[in-house]
Amino acid sequence: MARKVFVLNGPNLNALGKREPGMYGGKSLSDIEKDCRKLGNELGFEIDFRQTNHEGVLVDWLHEADDAAIGVVTNPGAYSHTSIALHDAIRAISIPVIEVHISNIHARETFRHTSMISSVVAGAILGFGPNGYNLALRALSDICNN
Amino acid sequence: MARKVFVLNGPNLNALGKREPGMYGGKSLSDIEKDCRKLGNELGFEIDFRQTNHEGVLVDWLHEADDAAIGVVTNPGAYSHTSIALHDAIRAISIPVIEVHISNIHARETFRHTSMISSVVAGAILGFGPNGYNLALRALSDICNN
Amino acid sequence: MARKVFVLNGPNLNALGKREPGMYGGKSLSDIEKDCRKLGNELGFEIDFRQTNHEGVLVDWLHEADDAAIGVVTNPGAYSHTSIALHDAIRAISIPVIEVHISNIHARETFRHTSMISSVVAGAILGFGPNGYNLALRALSDICNN
Amino acid sequence: MARKVFVLNGPNLNALGKREPGMYGGKSLSDIEKDCRKLGNELGFEIDFRQTNHEGVLVDWLHEADDAAIGVVTNPGAYSHTSIALHDAIRAISIPVIEVHISNIHARETFRHTSMISSVVAGAILGFGPNGYNLALRALSDICNN
Amino acid sequence: MARKVFVLNGPNLNALGKREPGMYGGKSLSDIEKDCRKLGNELGFEIDFRQTNHEGVLVDWLHEADDAAIGVVTNPGAYSHTSIALHDAIRAISIPVIEVHISNIHARETFRHTSMISSVVAGAILGFGPNGYNLALRALSDICNN
Amino acid sequence: MARKVFVLNGPNLNALGKREPGMYGGKSLSDIEKDCRKLGNELGFEIDFRQTNHEGVLVDWLHEADDAAIGVVTNPGAYSHTSIALHDAIRAISIPVIEVHISNIHARETFRHTSMISSVVAGAILGFGPNGYNLALRALSDICNN
Amino acid sequence: MARKVFVLNGPNLNALGKREPGMYGGKSLSDIEKDCRKLGNELGFEIDFRQTNHEGVLVDWLHEADDAAIGVVTNPGAYSHTSIALHDAIRAISIPVIEVHISNIHARETFRHTSMISSVVAGAILGFGPNGYNLALRALSDICNN
Amino acid sequence: MARKVFVLNGPNLNALGKREPGMYGGKSLSDIEKDCRKLGNELGFEIDFRQTNHEGVLVDWLHEADDAAIGVVTNPGAYSHTSIALHDAIRAISIPVIEVHISNIHARETFRHTSMISSVVAGAILGFGPNGYNLALRALSDICNN
Amino acid sequence: MARKVFVLNGPNLNALGKREPGMYGGKSLSDIEKDCRKLGNELGFEIDFRQTNHEGVLVDWLHEADDAAIGVVTNPGAYSHTSIALHDAIRAISIPVIEVHISNIHARETFRHTSMISSVVAGAILGFGPNGYNLALRALSDICNN
Amino acid sequence: MARKVFVLNGPNLNALGKREPGMYGGKSLSDIEKDCRKLGNELGFEIDFRQTNHEGVLVDWLHEADDAAIGVVTNPGAYSHTSIALHDAIRAISIPVIEVHISNIHARETFRHTSMISSVVAGAILGFGPNGYNLALRALSDICNN
Amino acid sequence: MARKVFVLNGPNLNALGKREPGMYGGKSLSDIEKDCRKLGNELGFEIDFRQTNHEGVLVDWLHEADDAAIGVVTNPGAYSHTSIALHDAIRAISIPVIEVHISNIHARETFRHTSMISSVVAGAILGFGPNGYNLALRALSDICNN
Amino acid sequence: MARKVFVLNGPNLNALGKREPGMYGGKSLSDIEKDCRKLGNELGFEIDFRQTNHEGVLVDWLHEADDAAIGVVTNPGAYSHTSIALHDAIRAISIPVIEVHISNIHARETFRHTSMISSVVAGAILGFGPNGYNLALRALSDICNN
Repeated sequence: MARKVFVLNGPNLNALGKREPGMYGGKSLSDIEKDCRKLGNELGFEIDFRQTNHEGVLVDWLHEADDAAIGVVTNPGAYSHTSIALHDAIRAISIPVIEVHISNIHARETFRHTSMISSVVAGAILGFGPNGYNLALRALSDICNN
Repeated sequence: MARKVFVLNGPNLNALGKREPGMYGGKSLSDIEKDCRKLGNELGFEIDFRQTNHEGVLVDWLHEADDAAIGVVTNPGAYSHTSIALHDAIRAISIPVIEVHISNIHARETFRHTSMISSVVAGAILGFGPNGYNLALRALSDICNN
Repeated sequence: MARKVFVLNGPNLNALGKREPGMYGGKSLSDIEKDCRKLGNELGFEIDFRQTNHEGVLVDWLHEADDAAIGVVTNPGAYSHTSIALHDAIRAISIPVIEVHISNIHARETFRHTSMISSVVAGAILGFGPNGYNLALRALSDICNN
Repeated sequence: MARKVFVLNGPNLNALGKREPGMYGGKSLSDIEKDCRKLGNELGFEIDFRQTNHEGVLVDWLHEADDAAIGVVTNPGAYSHTSIALHDAIRAISIPVIEVHISNIHARETFRHTSMISSVVAGAILGFGPNGYNLALRALSDICNN
Repeated sequence: MARKVFVLNGPNLNALGKREPGMYGGKSLSDIEKDCRKLGNELGFEIDFRQTNHEGVLVDWLHEADDAAIGVVTNPGAYSHTSIALHDAIRAISIPVIEVHISNIHARETFRHTSMISSVVAGAILGFGPNGYNLALRALSDICNN
Repeated sequence: MARKVFVLNGPNLNALGKREPGMYGGKSLSDIEKDCRKLGNELGFEIDFRQTNHEGVLVDWLHEADDAAIGVVTNPGAYSHTSIALHDAIRAISIPVIEVHISNIHARETFRHTSMISSVVAGAILGFGPNGYNLALRALSDICNN
Repeated sequence: MARKVFVLNGPNLNALGKREPGMYGGKSLSDIEKDCRKLGNELGFEIDFRQTNHEGVLVDWLHEADDAAIGVVTNPGAYSHTSIALHDAIRAISIPVIEVHISNIHARETFRHTSMISSVVAGAILGFGPNGYNLALRALSDICNN
Repeated sequence: MARKVFVLNGPNLNALGKREPGMYGGKSLSDIEKDCRKLGNELGFEIDFRQTNHEGVLVDWLHEADDAAIGVVTNPGAYSHTSIALHDAIRAISIPVIEVHISNIHARETFRHTSMISSVVAGAILGFGPNGYNLALRALSDICNN
Repeated sequence: MARKVFVLNGPNLNALGKREPGMYGGKSLSDIEKDCRKLGNELGFEIDFRQTNHEGVLVDWLHEADDAAIGVVTNPGAYSHTSIALHDAIRAISIPVIEVHISNIHARETFRHTSMISSVVAGAILGFGPNGYNLALRALSDICNN
Repeated sequence: MARKVFVLNGPNLNALGKREPGMYGGKSLSDIEKDCRKLGNELGFEIDFRQTNHEGVLVDWLHEADDAAIGVVTNPGAYSHTSIALHDAIRAISIPVIEVHISNIHARETFRHTSMISSVVAGAILGFGPNGYNLALRALSDICNN
Repeated sequence: MARKVFVLNGPNLNALGKREPGMYGGKSLSDIEKDCRKLGNELGFEIDFRQTNHEGVLVDWLHEADDAAIGVVTNPGAYSHTSIALHDAIRAISIPVIEVHISNIHARETFRHTSMISSVVAGAILGFGPNGYNLALRALSDICNN
Repeated sequence: MARKVFVLNGPNLNALGKREPGMYGGKSLSDIEKDCRKLGNELGFEIDFRQTNHEGVLVDWLHEADDAAIGVVTNPGAYSHTSIALHDAIRAISIPVIEVHISNIHARETFRHTSMISSVVAGAILGFGPNGYNLALRALSDICNN
């Protein structure tokens, strides 16, 4: 039976594809969801793919994941840079969490150079575009199989 | 037919009138709503006037506005100073957004001197009290008629 | 008839007891709720004990408290350190608000050393573990009886 | 009889139109002067429109305005960001002063993000291009008629 | 037999009552001493209440307390914000130390927002006026009885 | 024959007396001039008393003083806090220069806490109101008679 | 024929396995080399795996790679945090460069939180231990095959 | 009968004359004391001239002065730059306090550019050498006779 | 016919030769003017050499140069370090501007290490004494002949 | 006859041995005193070994040493990091002063990384535990015999 | 006989011409070498032109130059901004060193705005492209012939 | 048989004696080498004394020392202040490393006040001139014999 993995997306990722395609590429979030499901299938993962614009909902979902999933891939978007609540939520749960950013946050505005969750995730993958989600699923698979 | 304009208000603006009247004046938010509707009428705008204490709801509404309205006037209150999510939401949509602050944020605490959205709005109007909403509607009208 | 007191808890406090027990102790939030009800009884307080992971909900509840309660004890968790919205909400209401932190935030990471609400609360109690809630209720009782 | 309003422009605004049109638009300062006179007429204002590259002259004019005018609209250009003398001059006079910036100073270099006069003006209007002058005159009219 | 508790007060607290009563209230330090003795009696504490303007004397007393008392309540006044010597003294002794501030130090000048001892005390109580001493004694009693 | 002393006043000091009397007192600049002439007489000084709103004029006058006077008393107002040109002008001349501030600049906004000329003047006198000019003349007299 | 990929390791990585195994794990650099060769084989890459303690040598190798390889995976160790020379070298060449860090640099000392090369690499992979090299090779393969 | 004035000197001023004469001049502290007594006589002041190396003693003396003297002239030496206790002591008393520094503290190391007491004294006199004490006594006389 | 070049000197350069000769050398500004004329002759430049202590005049002259000259050599002295107005004036004109400093500003006080105009000039020449003007004229000649 | 050397210890060093033995080792201050006397004997030094918790007393002793001793070894503990008074006292005396720290202050909290006296001592010895006193005595002997 | 001059180039300058031609122009380093030799000939200089990517080699060469050459022109590239070793090497030798940068470092990223060697060179030439080397050779010639 | 000790010197120490003798004294590095060998002999150490201008070589040597020596005395000169590579190399090896600086780095430029290796060495000896090497060897001997 497939093991469940949460893929949790933060604010404005619902606008992917039409939002600043020069920065984020032309793929929509549902394109990424399809890619994740396809690779998840290969890796034996059942993907629970979600998006929200609410910081509190991301916290709720992380707590939910602790009971329901074996790991989390998350791109918390703008909340990555300021949310101590997400930092605490990741510390509060015991499954591995992997951070993904589509764009290279270090090549952008200073306020995107800091991630409040980097210090508590299992690892981070930055700047590879939508492919970052696939790399994160592979990384999670490697962690779970070790 | 009137063009729709969203007027989006952030946290604690529901307390306007009873909250620190020395700072914000004695008008309530529904007084402002009435003024906006009246001037909107003149300018050919249908006003959709809303308030929320939730950062995520402001982001949701901005996405909604992109399809439903020709422009946004927003006073995001406290979230103005810290929200990268609002910054990103405004960049993600293609209609003009105008920032309003009732009080002069530069004459107050240091943490109110920064606005995370100022760099992405069409323009900003600060310190004119409730009249700032009217000025913002006029500014929006000027932008839409050019 | 007992006077109502709101005890408002912020993000991740629902995980208390299982979350980093070395830092926060083994008591769960419902253990603390029981302790609060017991002491509240003694002090003539009806305790309305709540928890949320959403910043906006904390703001909503503070507005609600202004009409429904004689005071608030709050542990806004991670939002304490960044939320101007909470700061404004506390200024917007007229009942006393007391800040509690279970752990000693000054003995932890730098980003926990600042509280955005400390400058507007009636007083703050830090580092006494779950007992901080009891001390806060006593402090509130002293304020209300003076 | 028309009430006098000073419109005071700071350094390099004489180059408007030929200076970085991508940033400031193609209108010259005398185009703006014409627009101000036209709207001034409507609002019952006699416009005294001036430009100088000298910080001291701006200070002189503000003192002069205190006796000669009912209000000031000012775009002090580069001096906005560093001049304590202008800050003090505005505090020293009793008529309302409104700050205008043609470009969105918050979307440009860091040294333009601060305005030394924002904390002492009646209000500020940023980023609407030459139309900002019109909005400022309207705002001044609203202040004077209240 | 009553257990001894040191209540150690730092610089300028001898002027309490006549010093800035708007900030610190009208109670003198000997009024607070009386309140402490009264509550100490209830809690089974013998109170040794002292005041000094000398940083070094506070250090001496903390060392003395380690042998003579079961706990310390201290309001080191101005030295709280700068004294590494007090920080080290508290770390050097093995009994619990509780920090009290009469005024809300976070609502005052920036140089009062930092406490050099907060990271090493058992807990801190800020802003409740003279009642803070009582809350501190209760907190100490709870610690000693657990 | 009386020795000449320049008393050089910077921006906005022409508004003294009517400008923020709570801060600067009710004396006008010509009242101060009279006091200076009177004390100058006693001390054997011919007073050349001037005011300008222009930084460049202050620099011009300092150069002029080097040939025409035996010393300078200066209150450069707002330019004190930012003017490297004044700093250099004082270094470039060989007569003693004394800095005066009417108000206590350290008890005001942070941007007034720095003086760019303090490091190159013979001495500074701050916060004694208009009497500071008299103290400065006495100080200059002491320097010249030693 | 296999395409060549440079895997370039910086200072102290030769000590891997014996150096702080709690931080970096028990694998030696030659273990990692073997893993890279194995996966390289699968992906059609010929791996040129090198280590140096010299910043200048890393710069030399990056220039060499521009002619000899189709991409670079690099873990510049300590030089990541300070080397503008590496930043410039990566900008000077036209093949994709991927940054890897074995440990989670954001969970360590502040001076490791900055990477001078992050803003110019194709993407970065942090904190997955030795497995980061494999993820980087896969990422490079994805880039080269798109 | 002469009115009493305290002249309070801080650490290392006992070494005046032999300590860095290039910086502080060749006068000893007892030379200054004599000068103060002489001018005090003229002004109708009885001078109580003291020196201590102890921060706490300076605080004690300020409290003592509040009852015994009509004003204080103080040169707190090194404690000027760091002592919040002195700041508080000056605020706690109701007689005027005048700050003197022999050397020009702004022309020396950065850590001497700040004075923790400047914001609470009646005025400050910096850089005139030993003559600063005389100027301070005159300033005090002017304050007391107004 | 010779092409015109403006050589524009800022505050205190009129004092050259007598002002701090250890820092600036013994040449006066008119010595430098003569050198410039001589080399200008060789290079086919008519030199318009000016000095002012007024920031606004420098701005005026830069605007004037745009119509009258083929290039500018400028040493804005103290205004280099703070003047955004000069920065904007240089951006507003289309002829090349070259920055010269006589002394090595990086070997002096920190406040001289920044130049507000360096980012908009064609090039800068620092620390070569009066010879810097000659180097600047040669550099301008090279630019104009390419 | 033996030359006298002062060994001056600051706050909390009286608790050595029982205070944080993991940090400071198990030796008490009187053990160190014995070691110093023994090595002093060898080197021809009479050791005057003292400890105080008072900053002012350290200043007093340094002045006393200037007349009574040929050199000073000092470990001012916590006062090292903040005391300008100690800095000034060491500058005010003419005998060599050597700074010792038992623990490696650079491997501890940031506020211990600065020493206010390092810039004025003859040399400093950090991190060698109690043996640092011996090294300091040897260093002093080398200085005195050269 | 020609006097020898070292022209020392730092990291990545070997890539000149193909590296970011929009920034650095299309000339290669050997083109610049030719230009230097040609002008060197005119000025009576034998040019020893070198490039290295190693900070240590630049230090070695500066020491070598002290014996072998009469002056150095250096463009240390990226090491300019961070290398204290180069700063010290230039101080350690007695011949004049001139700093050149091809691009205008002040118009680029913040980390290029600082030069660690500017304070110890004879002069600096910034932003004139490859022509900067020629200007530097002329400047060196002027220094050597004075 | 003598135990081997590496004495590793960083950049510019080869110029000792002729480089700024006012700062570093007149001894050359080979004089220091002789002193080290002489004292090494006494202490039973075989001294391997080296110097390099290359950061990478210092890292190489530290790794080499881990197998070949029982301890290291190092003066990494300029690299002390910036090299994370040296910091990591010292952490990567298991023998004690002692840091020496000839001059008092805290009495010099700010950029020399920080040492990147101080937090990982066994101890540090600063400011005693060439004698610091001897003190370091003694300290190492004490560590090895305990």
